[in-house]
Amino acid sequence: MVEERDWDQFHSPENLAKSISIEASELLEHYQWDTKANPEDVVQELADVLTYCLLLARKLDCDPAQIVLEKLRETEKKYPVEKAKGSSTKYDRL
Amino acid sequence: MVEERDWDQFHSPENLAKSISIEASELLEHYQWDTKANPEDVVQELADVLTYCLLLARKLDCDPAQIVLEKLRETEKKYPVEKAKGSSTKYDRL
Amino acid sequence: MVEERDWDQFHSPENLAKSISIEASELLEHYQWDTKANPEDVVQELADVLTYCLLLARKLDCDPAQIVLEKLRETEKKYPVEKAKGSSTKYDRL
Amino acid sequence: MVEERDWDQFHSPENLAKSISIEASELLEHYQWDTKANPEDVVQELADVLTYCLLLARKLDCDPAQIVLEKLRETEKKYPVEKAKGSSTKYDRL
Repeated sequence: MVEERDWDQFHSPENLAKSISIEASELLEHYQWDTKANPEDVVQELADVLTYCLLLARKLDCDPAQIVLEKLRETEKKYPVEKAKGSSTKYDRL
Repeated sequence: MVEERDWDQFHSPENLAKSISIEASELLEHYQWDTKANPEDVVQELADVLTYCLLLARKLDCDPAQIVLEKLRETEKKYPVEKAKGSSTKYDRL
Repeated sequence: MVEERDWDQFHSPENLAKSISIEASELLEHYQWDTKANPEDVVQELADVLTYCLLLARKLDCDPAQIVLEKLRETEKKYPVEKAKGSSTKYDRL
Repeated sequence: MVEERDWDQFHSPENLAKSISIEASELLEHYQWDTKANPEDVVQELADVLTYCLLLARKLDCDPAQIVLEKLRETEKKYPVEKAKGSSTKYDRL
Protein backbone atom coordinates (compact mmCIF):
# COMPACT_ATOMS: atom_id res chain seq x y z
CA MET A 1 0.00 0.00 0.00
CA VAL A 2 2.71 2.44 1.06
CA GLU A 3 5.03 1.32 -1.75
CA GLU A 4 2.40 1.61 -4.48
CA ARG A 5 1.83 5.23 -3.48
CA ASP A 6 5.54 6.15 -3.12
CA TRP A 7 4.80 7.24 0.43
CA ASP A 8 7.88 5.53 1.79
CA GLN A 9 9.82 8.78 1.25
CA PHE A 10 7.80 10.36 4.11
CA HIS A 11 8.23 7.38 6.40
CA SER A 12 11.58 8.07 8.03
CA PRO A 13 11.77 6.49 11.49
CA GLU A 14 11.69 10.00 12.96
CA ASN A 15 8.51 10.94 11.07
CA LEU A 16 6.89 7.64 12.09
CA ALA A 17 7.86 8.31 15.73
CA LYS A 18 6.18 11.72 15.51
CA SER A 19 3.17 10.10 13.87
CA ILE A 20 2.76 7.45 16.57
CA SER A 21 2.84 10.19 19.21
CA ILE A 22 0.36 12.38 17.31
CA GLU A 23 -2.10 9.52 16.81
CA ALA A 24 -1.72 8.40 20.44
CA SER A 25 -2.73 11.92 21.41
CA GLU A 26 -5.79 11.79 19.16
CA LEU A 27 -6.75 8.60 20.96
CA LEU A 28 -6.26 10.34 24.32
CA GLU A 29 -8.42 13.24 23.14
CA HIS A 30 -11.46 10.99 23.51
CA TYR A 31 -10.73 10.90 27.25
CA GLN A 32 -9.80 14.60 27.57
CA TRP A 33 -12.76 15.66 29.74
CA ASP A 34 -14.20 12.30 30.72
CA THR A 35 -13.14 8.84 31.83
CA LYS A 36 -15.59 7.35 29.33
CA ALA A 37 -15.48 7.47 25.56
CA ASN A 38 -17.27 5.98 22.60
CA PRO A 39 -15.52 2.60 22.06
CA GLU A 40 -16.01 2.72 18.29
CA ASP A 41 -14.20 6.07 18.05
CA VAL A 42 -11.41 4.81 20.26
CA VAL A 43 -10.96 1.68 18.13
CA GLN A 44 -10.50 3.88 15.05
CA GLU A 45 -7.74 5.88 16.73
CA LEU A 46 -6.15 2.73 18.12
CA ALA A 47 -5.98 1.36 14.56
CA ASP A 48 -4.07 4.51 13.52
CA VAL A 49 -1.56 4.18 16.36
CA LEU A 50 -1.06 0.48 15.59
CA THR A 51 -0.61 1.09 11.88
CA TYR A 52 2.22 3.56 12.43
CA CYS A 53 3.74 1.18 14.98
CA LEU A 54 3.74 -1.61 12.41
CA LEU A 55 5.28 0.67 9.77
CA LEU A 56 8.05 1.62 12.21
CA ALA A 57 8.61 -2.03 13.17
CA ARG A 58 9.06 -2.83 9.48
CA LYS A 59 11.55 0.06 9.10
CA LEU A 60 13.50 -1.21 12.09
CA ASP A 61 13.30 -4.74 10.75
CA CYS A 62 11.80 -6.19 13.90
CA ASP A 63 8.85 -8.52 14.50
CA PRO A 64 6.15 -6.67 16.50
CA ALA A 65 4.77 -9.83 18.10
CA GLN A 66 8.19 -10.97 19.19
CA ILE A 67 9.27 -7.68 20.79
CA VAL A 68 6.01 -7.55 22.75
CA LEU A 69 6.54 -11.09 24.01
CA GLU A 70 10.11 -10.34 25.04
CA LYS A 71 8.97 -7.23 26.88
CA LEU A 72 6.30 -9.26 28.70
CA ARG A 73 8.89 -11.81 29.76
CA GLU A 74 11.13 -9.05 31.14
CA THR A 75 8.22 -7.48 33.02
CA GLU A 76 7.30 -10.83 34.53
CA LYS A 77 10.83 -11.19 35.87
CA LYS A 78 10.98 -7.60 37.11
CA TYR A 79 7.69 -7.88 38.98
CA PRO A 80 7.34 -11.40 40.41
CA VAL A 81 3.71 -12.31 41.21
CA GLU A 82 4.30 -12.76 44.93
CA LYS A 83 5.72 -9.25 45.26
CA ALA A 84 3.64 -7.30 42.78
CA LYS A 85 0.18 -8.75 43.40
CA GLY A 86 -2.42 -6.02 43.71
CA SER A 87 0.14 -3.55 44.85
CA SER A 88 -0.28 -0.07 43.50
CA THR A 89 2.82 1.19 45.28
CA LYS A 90 4.99 -1.39 43.55
CA TYR A 91 3.02 -0.94 40.41
CA ASP A 92 4.80 1.22 37.97
CA ARG A 93 4.30 0.13 34.44
CA LEU A 94 2.55 -2.57 32.40
CA MET B 1 0.39 -11.77 33.38
CA VAL B 2 -1.75 -8.74 34.21
CA GLU B 3 -4.39 -10.93 35.86
CA GLU B 4 -1.94 -12.86 38.04
CA ARG B 5 -0.69 -9.56 39.44
CA ASP B 6 -4.15 -7.98 39.94
CA TRP B 7 -3.03 -5.08 37.79
CA ASP B 8 -6.25 -5.00 35.86
CA GLN B 9 -7.62 -2.51 38.39
CA PHE B 10 -5.21 0.13 37.03
CA HIS B 11 -6.01 -0.66 33.40
CA SER B 12 -9.07 1.45 32.75
CA PRO B 13 -9.32 2.41 29.07
CA GLU B 14 -8.54 6.01 30.08
CA ASN B 15 -5.37 5.00 31.94
CA LEU B 16 -4.29 2.82 29.02
CA ALA B 17 -4.91 5.73 26.62
CA LYS B 18 -2.67 7.94 28.79
CA SER B 19 -0.09 5.15 28.91
CA ILE B 20 0.01 4.72 25.12
CA SER B 21 0.57 8.46 24.74
CA ILE B 22 3.27 8.55 27.43
CA GLU B 23 5.17 5.62 25.92
CA ALA B 24 4.81 7.07 22.41
CA SER B 25 6.47 10.18 23.75
CA GLU B 26 9.33 8.19 25.25
CA LEU B 27 9.83 6.69 21.81
CA LEU B 28 9.84 10.17 20.28
CA GLU B 29 12.40 11.33 22.86
CA HIS B 30 15.04 9.29 21.01
CA TYR B 31 14.53 11.66 18.07
CA GLN B 32 14.27 14.85 20.13
CA TRP B 33 17.49 16.51 18.89
CA ASP B 34 18.40 14.26 15.99
CA THR B 35 16.80 12.48 13.05
CA LYS B 36 18.80 9.37 13.94
CA ALA B 37 18.49 7.15 17.00
CA ASN B 38 19.83 3.87 18.28
CA PRO B 39 17.48 1.24 16.72
CA GLU B 40 17.75 -1.07 19.72
CA ASP B 41 16.54 1.66 22.09
CA VAL B 42 13.71 2.53 19.75
CA VAL B 43 12.60 -1.11 19.51
CA GLN B 44 12.34 -1.25 23.32
CA GLU B 45 10.07 1.80 23.40
CA LEU B 46 8.04 0.51 20.46
CA ALA B 47 7.44 -2.69 22.42
CA ASP B 48 6.03 -0.60 25.29
CA VAL B 49 3.68 1.33 23.01
CA LEU B 50 2.51 -1.89 21.35
CA THR B 51 1.96 -3.65 24.68
CA TYR B 52 -0.38 -0.92 25.94
CA CYS B 53 -2.13 -0.89 22.55
CA LEU B 54 -2.78 -4.63 22.86
CA LEU B 55 -4.05 -4.22 26.43
CA LEU B 56 -6.46 -1.52 25.27
CA ALA B 57 -7.58 -3.64 22.31
CA ARG B 58 -8.40 -6.45 24.73
CA LYS B 59 -10.35 -4.04 26.96
CA LEU B 60 -12.31 -2.83 23.95
CA ASP B 61 -12.80 -6.40 22.80
CA CYS B 62 -11.38 -5.83 19.34
CA ASP B 63 -8.87 -7.76 17.26
CA PRO B 64 -5.78 -5.56 16.67
CA ALA B 65 -4.87 -7.23 13.37
CA GLN B 66 -8.38 -6.84 12.03
CA ILE B 67 -8.77 -3.14 12.88
CA VAL B 68 -5.41 -2.39 11.22
CA LEU B 69 -6.47 -4.23 8.08
CA GLU B 70 -9.78 -2.40 7.96
CA LYS B 71 -8.02 0.93 8.38
CA LEU B 72 -5.64 0.05 5.53
CA ARG B 73 -8.56 -0.82 3.29
CA GLU B 74 -10.19 2.54 4.05
CA THR B 75 -6.97 4.40 3.38
CA GLU B 76 -6.54 2.62 0.06
CA LYS B 77 -9.99 3.77 -0.98
CA LYS B 78 -9.45 7.31 0.28
CA TYR B 79 -6.14 7.72 -1.56
CA PRO B 80 -6.29 5.81 -4.87
CA VAL B 81 -2.84 4.98 -6.28
CA GLU B 82 -3.28 7.04 -9.43
CA LYS B 83 -4.05 10.18 -7.44
CA ALA B 84 -1.81 9.79 -4.43
CA LYS B 85 1.37 8.47 -5.99
CA GLY B 86 4.42 10.30 -4.71
CA SER B 87 2.43 13.36 -3.95
CA SER B 88 3.36 15.15 -0.77
CA THR B 89 0.65 17.75 -1.18
CA LYS B 90 -2.05 15.07 -1.31
CA TYR B 91 -0.24 13.12 1.32
CA ASP B 92 -1.79 13.59 4.67
CA ARG B 93 -1.75 10.46 6.71
CA LEU B 94 -0.71 6.81 6.46
CA MET C 1 21.57 31.24 28.56
CA VAL C 2 20.92 29.33 25.32
CA GLU C 3 23.20 31.69 23.33
CA GLU C 4 26.12 31.48 25.77
CA ARG C 5 26.09 27.70 25.38
CA ASP C 6 25.66 27.68 21.57
CA TRP C 7 22.56 25.54 22.05
CA ASP C 8 20.58 27.53 19.52
CA GLN C 9 21.77 25.11 16.84
CA PHE C 10 19.57 22.38 18.37
CA HIS C 11 16.56 24.66 18.76
CA SER C 12 14.92 24.42 15.38
CA PRO C 13 11.15 25.05 15.62
CA GLU C 14 10.61 21.36 14.82
CA ASN C 15 12.91 20.20 17.62
CA LEU C 16 11.22 22.61 20.04
CA ALA C 17 7.81 21.30 18.98
CA LYS C 18 8.97 17.74 19.72
CA SER C 19 10.40 18.93 23.04
CA ILE C 20 7.16 20.61 24.12
CA SER C 21 5.27 17.39 23.37
CA ILE C 22 7.83 15.23 25.18
CA GLU C 23 7.81 17.41 28.29
CA ALA C 24 4.00 17.61 28.24
CA SER C 25 4.00 13.85 28.33
CA GLU C 26 6.38 13.77 31.30
CA LEU C 27 3.92 16.05 33.07
CA LEU C 28 1.07 13.69 32.17
CA GLU C 29 3.08 10.74 33.49
CA HIS C 30 2.40 11.99 37.03
CA TYR C 31 -1.29 11.29 36.37
CA GLN C 32 -0.76 7.97 34.53
CA TRP C 33 -2.38 5.71 37.13
CA ASP C 34 -4.04 8.23 39.41
CA THR C 35 -6.05 11.45 39.27
CA LYS C 36 -3.83 12.89 42.00
CA ALA C 37 -0.13 13.76 41.83
CA ASN C 38 2.49 15.48 43.93
CA PRO C 39 2.03 19.21 43.08
CA GLU C 40 5.75 19.96 43.47
CA ASP C 41 6.68 17.33 40.87
CA VAL C 42 4.02 18.62 38.52
CA VAL C 43 5.27 22.21 38.87
CA GLN C 44 8.77 21.07 37.82
CA GLU C 45 7.42 19.45 34.66
CA LEU C 46 5.17 22.42 33.94
CA ALA C 47 8.26 24.66 34.11
CA ASP C 48 9.90 22.46 31.45
CA VAL C 49 6.88 22.66 29.13
CA LEU C 50 6.66 26.44 29.59
CA THR C 51 10.39 26.95 28.97
CA TYR C 52 10.24 25.19 25.61
CA CYS C 53 7.06 27.12 24.77
CA LEU C 54 8.87 30.40 25.46
CA LEU C 55 11.86 29.32 23.36
CA LEU C 56 9.54 28.49 20.46
CA ALA C 57 7.67 31.79 20.87
CA ARG C 58 11.00 33.60 20.60
CA LYS C 59 11.89 31.62 17.47
CA LEU C 60 8.55 32.51 15.92
CA ASP C 61 8.98 36.10 17.03
CA CYS C 62 5.69 36.27 18.87
CA ASP C 63 4.76 37.58 22.30
CA PRO C 64 3.49 34.65 24.45
CA ALA C 65 1.26 36.87 26.63
CA GLN C 66 -0.33 38.49 23.62
CA ILE C 67 -1.13 35.26 21.75
CA VAL C 68 -2.76 33.84 24.89
CA LEU C 69 -4.90 36.96 25.30
CA GLU C 70 -5.96 36.86 21.65
CA LYS C 71 -6.87 33.19 21.98
CA LEU C 72 -8.96 33.94 25.09
CA ARG C 73 -10.80 36.70 23.24
CA GLU C 74 -11.59 34.31 20.38
CA THR C 75 -12.80 31.63 22.78
CA GLU C 76 -15.06 34.12 24.55
CA LYS C 77 -16.67 34.99 21.23
CA LYS C 78 -16.97 31.35 20.18
CA TYR C 79 -18.62 30.28 23.44
CA PRO C 80 -20.85 33.13 24.73
CA VAL C 81 -21.59 32.88 28.47
CA GLU C 82 -25.31 32.44 28.02
CA LYS C 83 -24.86 29.46 25.73
CA ALA C 84 -21.82 27.76 27.23
CA LYS C 85 -22.53 28.10 30.95
CA GLY C 86 -21.95 24.81 32.77
CA SER C 87 -22.62 22.84 29.66
CA SER C 88 -20.42 19.85 29.16
CA THR C 89 -22.03 18.93 25.86
CA LYS C 90 -21.19 22.33 24.38
CA TYR C 91 -17.90 22.27 26.16
CA ASP C 92 -15.16 21.33 23.88
CA ARG C 93 -11.99 23.19 24.59
CA LEU C 94 -10.63 25.85 26.94
CA MET D 1 -13.62 33.60 31.46
CA VAL D 2 -13.54 30.02 32.76
CA GLU D 3 -15.49 30.98 35.89
CA GLU D 4 -18.24 32.84 34.02
CA ARG D 5 -18.88 29.69 31.98
CA ASP D 6 -18.73 27.25 34.94
CA TRP D 7 -16.00 25.39 33.10
CA ASP D 8 -13.87 25.04 36.20
CA GLN D 9 -15.60 21.71 36.90
CA PHE D 10 -13.81 20.18 33.88
CA HIS D 11 -10.44 21.67 34.82
CA SER D 12 -9.04 19.12 37.23
CA PRO D 13 -5.24 19.11 37.20
CA GLU D 14 -5.39 15.68 35.53
CA ASN D 15 -7.68 16.92 32.75
CA LEU D 16 -5.47 19.97 32.24
CA ALA D 17 -2.40 17.71 32.07
CA LYS D 18 -4.13 15.64 29.37
CA SER D 19 -5.11 18.85 27.57
CA ILE D 20 -1.56 20.26 27.56
CA SER D 21 -0.32 17.00 26.05
CA ILE D 22 -3.10 16.90 23.46
CA GLU D 23 -2.51 20.49 22.35
CA ALA D 24 1.26 19.96 22.29
CA SER D 25 0.61 17.12 19.90
CA GLU D 26 -1.55 19.31 17.67
CA LEU D 27 1.38 21.72 17.53
CA LEU D 28 3.71 18.85 16.61
CA GLU D 29 1.31 17.76 13.87
CA HIS D 30 2.40 20.78 11.83
CA TYR D 31 5.87 19.22 11.69
CA GLN D 32 4.67 15.63 11.13
CA TRP D 33 6.04 15.20 7.60
CA ASP D 34 8.23 18.26 7.26
CA THR D 35 10.76 20.29 9.23
CA LYS D 36 8.99 23.46 8.11
CA ALA D 37 5.49 24.66 9.01
CA ASN D 38 3.34 27.74 8.57
CA PRO D 39 4.37 30.00 11.50
CA GLU D 40 0.88 31.46 11.87
CA ASP D 41 -0.65 28.01 12.35
CA VAL D 42 2.05 27.08 14.84
CA VAL D 43 1.45 30.27 16.84
CA GLN D 44 -2.24 29.34 17.17
CA GLU D 45 -1.38 25.92 18.57
CA LEU D 46 1.29 27.37 20.83
CA ALA D 47 -1.34 29.73 22.28
CA ASP D 48 -3.50 26.68 23.10
CA VAL D 49 -0.64 24.89 24.87
CA LEU D 50 0.25 28.03 26.82
CA THR D 51 -3.35 28.68 27.85
CA TYR D 52 -3.73 25.22 29.39
CA CYS D 53 -0.31 25.64 31.04
CA LEU D 54 -1.48 28.91 32.64
CA LEU D 55 -4.73 27.29 33.80
CA LEU D 56 -2.76 24.47 35.42
CA ALA D 57 -0.32 26.94 37.03
CA ARG D 58 -3.32 28.73 38.56
CA LYS D 59 -4.71 25.43 39.85
CA LEU D 60 -1.36 24.57 41.42
CA ASP D 61 -1.10 28.10 42.79
CA CYS D 62 2.27 28.80 41.24
CA ASP D 63 3.62 31.77 39.27
CA PRO D 64 4.49 30.63 35.71
CA ALA D 65 7.20 33.29 35.22
CA GLN D 66 8.85 32.40 38.50
CA ILE D 67 8.98 28.64 37.93
CA VAL D 68 10.52 29.19 34.49
CA LEU D 69 13.18 31.49 35.95
CA GLU D 70 14.00 28.98 38.67
CA LYS D 71 14.29 26.20 36.12
CA LEU D 72 16.63 28.35 34.02
CA ARG D 73 18.82 29.03 37.03
CA GLU D 74 19.05 25.29 37.77
CA THR D 75 19.90 24.52 34.15
CA GLU D 76 22.64 27.14 34.16
CA LYS D 77 24.20 25.51 37.20
CA LYS D 78 23.82 22.02 35.78
CA TYR D 79 25.46 22.92 32.48
CA PRO D 80 28.22 25.50 33.10
CA VAL D 81 29.10 27.51 29.96
CA GLU D 82 32.69 26.32 29.78
CA LYS D 83 31.61 22.67 29.76
CA ALA D 84 28.42 22.81 27.73
CA LYS D 85 29.37 25.23 24.99
CA GLY D 86 28.37 23.94 21.56
CA SER D 87 28.53 20.40 22.71
CA SER D 88 25.85 18.15 21.37
CA THR D 89 27.10 15.15 23.32
CA LYS D 90 26.76 17.01 26.60
CA TYR D 91 23.58 18.59 25.38
CA ASP D 92 20.59 16.88 26.76
CA ARG D 93 17.79 19.29 27.51
CA LEU D 94 17.05 23.02 27.44
